[in-house]
Amino acid sequence: MIQRTISNIGRAWKDLTGATRVRLTGSVRPELPEADRKRLARQIDECLLGRGGVVSERARAADLGHTYSGLDVVGRRRFLELLAAEYGVDEKALSDATAAWTALQRSGNGCVGDMLARCQTIQSDMRAVLTPPRVHLLSRFTALPNGVKFLVDMRAELLPLARTDPQLKGLDEDMKRLFASWFDVGFLELRCITWDAPASLLEKLAHYEAVHAIESWSDIKNRLAPDRRCYAFFHPQLPEEPLIYLWVALVKGLSGNVQELLDVSAPTGNPSEADTAIFYSISNAQAGLAGISFGSFLIKRVVEDLMRDFKNLKAFATLSPIPGFTDWLNEQIAEQGEALLRPSELRRFSELSPDPEGLDLLTAIQRQEGLFRKATIQEATRAPLMRMCAQYVTSAKRGQYARDRVAHFHLSNGARIERINWLADTSTNGMRQSLGMMINYLYKSRDIEDNHEAYSADGRIRTSKSVKALLKQGG
Amino acid sequence: MIQRTISNIGRAWKDLTGATRVRLTGSVRPELPEADRKRLARQIDECLLGRGGVVSERARAADLGHTYSGLDVVGRRRFLELLAAEYGVDEKALSDATAAWTALQRSGNGCVGDMLARCQTIQSDMRAVLTPPRVHLLSRFTALPNGVKFLVDMRAELLPLARTDPQLKGLDEDMKRLFASWFDVGFLELRCITWDAPASLLEKLAHYEAVHAIESWSDIKNRLAPDRRCYAFFHPQLPEEPLIYLWVALVKGLSGNVQELLDVSAPTGNPSEADTAIFYSISNAQAGLAGISFGSFLIKRVVEDLMRDFKNLKAFATLSPIPGFTDWLNEQIAEQGEALLRPSELRRFSELSPDPEGLDLLTAIQRQEGLFRKATIQEATRAPLMRMCAQYVTSAKRGQYARDRVAHFHLSNGARIERINWLADTSTNGMRQSLGMMINYLYKSRDIEDNHEAYSADGRIRTSKSVKALLKQGG
Amino acid sequence: MIQRTISNIGRAWKDLTGATRVRLTGSVRPELPEADRKRLARQIDECLLGRGGVVSERARAADLGHTYSGLDVVGRRRFLELLAAEYGVDEKALSDATAAWTALQRSGNGCVGDMLARCQTIQSDMRAVLTPPRVHLLSRFTALPNGVKFLVDMRAELLPLARTDPQLKGLDEDMKRLFASWFDVGFLELRCITWDAPASLLEKLAHYEAVHAIESWSDIKNRLAPDRRCYAFFHPQLPEEPLIYLWVALVKGLSGNVQELLDVSAPTGNPSEADTAIFYSISNAQAGLAGISFGSFLIKRVVEDLMRDFKNLKAFATLSPIPGFTDWLNEQIAEQGEALLRPSELRRFSELSPDPEGLDLLTAIQRQEGLFRKATIQEATRAPLMRMCAQYVTSAKRGQYARDRVAHFHLSNGARIERINWLADTSTNGMRQSLGMMINYLYKSRDIEDNHEAYSADGRIRTSKSVKALLKQGG
Amino acid sequence: MIQRTISNIGRAWKDLTGATRVRLTGSVRPELPEADRKRLARQIDECLLGRGGVVSERARAADLGHTYSGLDVVGRRRFLELLAAEYGVDEKALSDATAAWTALQRSGNGCVGDMLARCQTIQSDMRAVLTPPRVHLLSRFTALPNGVKFLVDMRAELLPLARTDPQLKGLDEDMKRLFASWFDVGFLELRCITWDAPASLLEKLAHYEAVHAIESWSDIKNRLAPDRRCYAFFHPQLPEEPLIYLWVALVKGLSGNVQELLDVSAPTGNPSEADTAIFYSISNAQAGLAGISFGSFLIKRVVEDLMRDFKNLKAFATLSPIPGFTDWLNEQIAEQGEALLRPSELRRFSELSPDPEGLDLLTAIQRQEGLFRKATIQEATRAPLMRMCAQYVTSAKRGQYARDRVAHFHLSNGARIERINWLADTSTNGMRQSLGMMINYLYKSRDIEDNHEAYSADGRIRTSKSVKALLKQGG
Repeated sequence: MIQRTISNIGRAWKDLTGATRVRLTGSVRPELPEADRKRLARQIDECLLGRGGVVSERARAADLGHTYSGLDVVGRRRFLELLAAEYGVDEKALSDATAAWTALQRSGNGCVGDMLARCQTIQSDMRAVLTPPRVHLLSRFTALPNGVKFLVDMRAELLPLARTDPQLKGLDEDMKRLFASWFDVGFLELRCITWDAPASLLEKLAHYEAVHAIESWSDIKNRLAPDRRCYAFFHPQLPEEPLIYLWVALVKGLSGNVQELLDVSAPTGNPSEADTAIFYSISNAQAGLAGISFGSFLIKRVVEDLMRDFKNLKAFATLSPIPGFTDWLNEQIAEQGEALLRPSELRRFSELSPDPEGLDLLTAIQRQEGLFRKATIQEATRAPLMRMCAQYVTSAKRGQYARDRVAHFHLSNGARIERINWLADTSTNGMRQSLGMMINYLYKSRDIEDNHEAYSADGRIRTSKSVKALLKQGG
Repeated sequence: MIQRTISNIGRAWKDLTGATRVRLTGSVRPELPEADRKRLARQIDECLLGRGGVVSERARAADLGHTYSGLDVVGRRRFLELLAAEYGVDEKALSDATAAWTALQRSGNGCVGDMLARCQTIQSDMRAVLTPPRVHLLSRFTALPNGVKFLVDMRAELLPLARTDPQLKGLDEDMKRLFASWFDVGFLELRCITWDAPASLLEKLAHYEAVHAIESWSDIKNRLAPDRRCYAFFHPQLPEEPLIYLWVALVKGLSGNVQELLDVSAPTGNPSEADTAIFYSISNAQAGLAGISFGSFLIKRVVEDLMRDFKNLKAFATLSPIPGFTDWLNEQIAEQGEALLRPSELRRFSELSPDPEGLDLLTAIQRQEGLFRKATIQEATRAPLMRMCAQYVTSAKRGQYARDRVAHFHLSNGARIERINWLADTSTNGMRQSLGMMINYLYKSRDIEDNHEAYSADGRIRTSKSVKALLKQGG
Repeated sequence: MIQRTISNIGRAWKDLTGATRVRLTGSVRPELPEADRKRLARQIDECLLGRGGVVSERARAADLGHTYSGLDVVGRRRFLELLAAEYGVDEKALSDATAAWTALQRSGNGCVGDMLARCQTIQSDMRAVLTPPRVHLLSRFTALPNGVKFLVDMRAELLPLARTDPQLKGLDEDMKRLFASWFDVGFLELRCITWDAPASLLEKLAHYEAVHAIESWSDIKNRLAPDRRCYAFFHPQLPEEPLIYLWVALVKGLSGNVQELLDVSAPTGNPSEADTAIFYSISNAQAGLAGISFGSFLIKRVVEDLMRDFKNLKAFATLSPIPGFTDWLNEQIAEQGEALLRPSELRRFSELSPDPEGLDLLTAIQRQEGLFRKATIQEATRAPLMRMCAQYVTSAKRGQYARDRVAHFHLSNGARIERINWLADTSTNGMRQSLGMMINYLYKSRDIEDNHEAYSADGRIRTSKSVKALLKQGG
Repeated sequence: MIQRTISNIGRAWKDLTGATRVRLTGSVRPELPEADRKRLARQIDECLLGRGGVVSERARAADLGHTYSGLDVVGRRRFLELLAAEYGVDEKALSDATAAWTALQRSGNGCVGDMLARCQTIQSDMRAVLTPPRVHLLSRFTALPNGVKFLVDMRAELLPLARTDPQLKGLDEDMKRLFASWFDVGFLELRCITWDAPASLLEKLAHYEAVHAIESWSDIKNRLAPDRRCYAFFHPQLPEEPLIYLWVALVKGLSGNVQELLDVSAPTGNPSEADTAIFYSISNAQAGLAGISFGSFLIKRVVEDLMRDFKNLKAFATLSPIPGFTDWLNEQIAEQGEALLRPSELRRFSELSPDPEGLDLLTAIQRQEGLFRKATIQEATRAPLMRMCAQYVTSAKRGQYARDRVAHFHLSNGARIERINWLADTSTNGMRQSLGMMINYLYKSRDIEDNHEAYSADGRIRTSKSVKALLKQGG
């Protein structure tokens, strides 16, 4: 991961250093050996001292960024570890502040009357102690051109390391908190991206697309045709970088097949005649903003925008992958065995797979892509698989919430499970993760709030009649 | 103050409510009587609960803003008091968190090894507790059109009340902390304002001008002539509102008279021939951003910009008022009496003012504007007044720093006191506050850092030879 | 006139010469004496030769423009006379071409078969001859920054001279033809001007306003209030210069008083509740574009724009001055004497003006402004004056068209005379030209074409019932 | 050709009709049979009558455009023939005007004194007659959205037909004259196109590229790398359509190989270190603007722009194809036979081509692509082919000018022939047209004017020493 983003940081850096005369305090070797580590610590200390006012501060921050970008993978890890170990919360100072609070609470009747100001002072002190030096250090970068992008890319490098190192985890939390404040949804700008958008931006969309890979320029042009829309959030500090983006198809009726939606040779529809907006892909573009959530807000802003522009739209729904279905299915096979299937289904399975016995057909179709191309196999597995899929999204849980992460995302947003689609994504990936099925989640304005509440509070999941019917078939 | 900004909030409100369907929970009377206070508290509670996701949150925040803007002066104070009293830090929860910290510290060897994660959790808990509900509540407004402007104007109303009420002071600190994060200098946009700028913007500049009042459209056009510049900082969330702005004159040599600079009938100079940039006024436009400091950064960005555009510029200096001089002088008169003056000066004073005795002349010229128009008076007082002025800015202190607030601002930024100007601002205000004198503070790139350090660390003030010479004259 | 625009040309010139290295061929004296005239002719000849391609051509055109702008009033007239006399149509060449045409026509059967190509060649030759050298010369200026503005200002200087000098008239016709092609209505850009428009642009609107003088910045701000609109046409080559602009008030019902419309202290209406758009002023900004007509197209584009933005608008009408009424009235008094009035009116007049006899009251009120302030005078004259006014606009003709130039403009555009308003413009100018009356011309979409045809073809004028009623009262 | 542009017109049309309510006068069949032709003529007549003012005019023009766009290839040809045959110059009226002129000239002393006004009137009449009705008709389209683009595409369809039909040729001339006025170089806007330009625009550049075909998006991205530039002219009426564009490479030293320039995998240079700007391709994008020349002006504007941005640039040169070389060579072979070669060359040729005799080698390598891949063949043919190429560009003439159209273009612009490059374009097309050779034409600021004059006046061609040396080698 670090390897991949090093070049990004290099790029961001070019502009960043272009803006200010960098005064190197003596270069540091790429792998940051122990000896250089001390030199780096002195450089950071000077940066924090803030001698000479805001302009010098900027120059020193740029200098430090330059140092970081000159390091290799090993050196960068050491740099981050230094920040994590030496520039965190001052525990002694925190203990002093908590002691002062405890003393105050014991002495009197709480934060009233004369004690109020004292209370506020102690709280301020605590807040100051809980904002460690590294937070001040990183904040300096906002005033550098591309400085925020630099930090975002730095966190992208930090994240995989922080998973296993609690100290780096602490640094990551600090960065995340900073970003949560800077990237407040109120500061984001919604843009509708068209075929007239900068080629450099479209190239980024293709690069970051996480759901249905963009193959070519015809492909992306097709996704920006008059009956398609792409919406993205931008932040003033990263004007050329999309943060998250959503692809929409304006169609008649619920779409149940993503290959049809993406078919370059399909005719272009008239968007003003469409009655349904299908959200068929949503991608985060900045790895360094992981955990800062924009998706829910983006979907709702896009619904507002579309309702204003297209008076004929009646329904807003997704066409979503089911990333965890196959894994769950295999667990079920292992646990329940033949109990998963009804007797008639089991019989039919056995007829079709003379060699293996009954249930093994499900395992077999996962292994032999060719098998699923047979109409008889499809026909026989359709009913049981759709039923199990309905069970999966409605019953498989992580805590009280849906185990499937895509399901969890849309249910949290207040959508309901509207329809399970058979043979909806026949790409290799689609077959692998969900045996080709996809789900439409429906966003219905007047139900969103209640759905959201029911799900957030108790994990209750709303479904359509057709999904309920699938569930009823179950043994 | 509230009275004045109520209309602003009304205006901001129009757009704010235009953007979202407001669901009023039942209207509240303008003076917010006790009975309605409870209803309001329920409204706030619901807002905080955040039922129904981000769009409902926005609608509820807009609703609450609507309630606030419908209140009168009394009602608004009560609204703010409710926020201050009921939605601050949960003291019990804070005590629990501090207790956990104390226990942890006692039990072991600090935040290492296995305890690290536990330490981080407690710190996170503390941070959460120290971010009280009202902060979450106010943060909701960022997602509303004009929501940030609404909060800034709300703080403008809060500020005068907070001066005498410690609880409101706590609320004010929370808002200031929020604003400090949102209005980070890195997020500001520098614009050079010309006569081609929107009339509505120029009207605002005239309205907010704090140093030399703008009289008419010819006046403002003159301040935007080719040999003049105006620079302002803007924030993406307040695109049409200047935050702070700086007026610059491009001239030959140090300017020593502000009336000449502002003379509408004076010929326009050729800016590319100028060797000196004079900063003759800097004004904050948003009362609600008091305490968030932009001035130092603005001056330095402007210097960068001017250096890039005008290769002939050699010097960057201010022409600044001395707001505290007369007050200080009168204190000196009261304390030191005739010791303030040299014998020869005292004699000359007595000759000029047969009626009063000696030193009283200084008091007299403050009272009788006409007196100062006499050449003999001017000539006799020039040397002693300029000397005392030099003493004032270099020696009169508040703690270790300059007592004069304008001097303190520029010295903190790393400027030095370059020249004291006689008869430099002969407006009523200029005569009243500094007997017509003004000061040039010089910003010299290579000295800024050292000057700033010397002043910040020890209060040492750097001056030019001419100012030193004035001081040496002193008895 | 020349005097006034010289400074404009000077200004335009600054940029123009900034763009290209001017190679002066030897300077020419300001009054362009005979000796220098020959030098100038050589300069023009070189310019026309076009040696060295397009860049050299530009440099030479800039050079020539520089020469022109350095001349005084006398010199400029001589410059224009030189262009008019020496660089017009080559009469000999024209005679040759016409002879060729005549010969061809006599010889055969017209422009068919083999002769077609020959016909076309002769026509091409004629066109070439009829595009004289000065037209090629002036066309060179389009490639200079501000070059088109330079030519427009040059024609503004030429126009008053051309009125009495047939040769200059010929030059003027050439310029007008060039401008008619460049300023084709299809190339104009419509902009809606608001209080957010550049101050420099609003200053121009105030400067060029021809109907109701703009007194102050409050006045212009009031004309740009939310219930007001200003629309202007711009041309890509003069991006900062309005060509023509129209002021609109969005009101309820037909406005009958312009002072009320312009009252700075009147409350601002809600434009979305307005049912009527009143066009109360239209001004040409470029004197040099006289005779190139934009007004009709502007009004129609504005109607389209308003209909799209304000669904409640039912009527589009003007509130227009009647510039020729008083002159016509005095002619009628001289011609018809007491026959102008009914006996009862005559009686009432005599009672009110004991000194003069009867009809003289009409003359008297034109001379003594004070007289009209008397309610009795107003009441007595109202009926006869409104009747005469109706007669004036409907019956006073120039050829078959309305004699009043404002009436002629709106009737040509397809409007009808809707209402005559008493005491509608009580400014000095309003009283002088029309004894305070103004007219509403109504633009009704579905009648415009027929009205236009009826008027264009036969001079038939459409009026409302109320105007017909006024006419019926007539003796 | 018509076939291809029909779809363009269809596209242009969509917007055009979107803007105005089209009132169809009864639809016309696609192939425009004789019966419908009369109906069409009536529609045109009504359009010309201009009843109902400017808005109705627009509607009727849109209607007519709609009719045209609904026709098939045959119908469109008939439409154009109708315009050409029936709406041209009124010959009778022209004869009348010429007769008036002849009479006037005979009667008197020419256009002086009292006769001046009469002369001007007759000239005006002639101009009016020589501006036939179809010109007025076509001019109506400027006021329609996309109307100008519609006409440009219409002319693209007309041009191939006009080559063989003199009447259509007349219509074409009228259109060309209109376009020459509208697309005056002074009205064009120069834009520098980067990788941040709209994808839709880059797609057009790829589509219209006439010199070195653009293969893919990597290819176009490479041509927009930091050491590359693309400049294009746009017109305000066709804001999204490039008219002509020029590709530039910023390199060190003269480039002699176009495949190297276009190599996607080559490293990107630092443009600020480049000393040479190579113009390696220029393409017209609008077939309908044939004969309206922008190229020379574009090159000169680009040179100005580059000189301003890159202070290190010393030379501006092309790397150009030699489209006519092979054709000319074959003519020479046919005419001169072995005399083309020196005896030693002839010997060497015979050795290499045992089968054919001597000179046939040149013919052989044109037929067998593989032959040229042999180093021995390349080595043997290099000297004689480069010599002949030098002879071709300097001596082969069409009239007094260079026969090669690319050479003619650059020599007309004032460039000189700087260098002939061996194996400079080894693409199939490059081998076919010039056996792989290309030419650098040098634009040297201080020589451009003289070179242009020498070539324009007498066809004299300026060359470098190296080209002269090649010529001297010749027998």
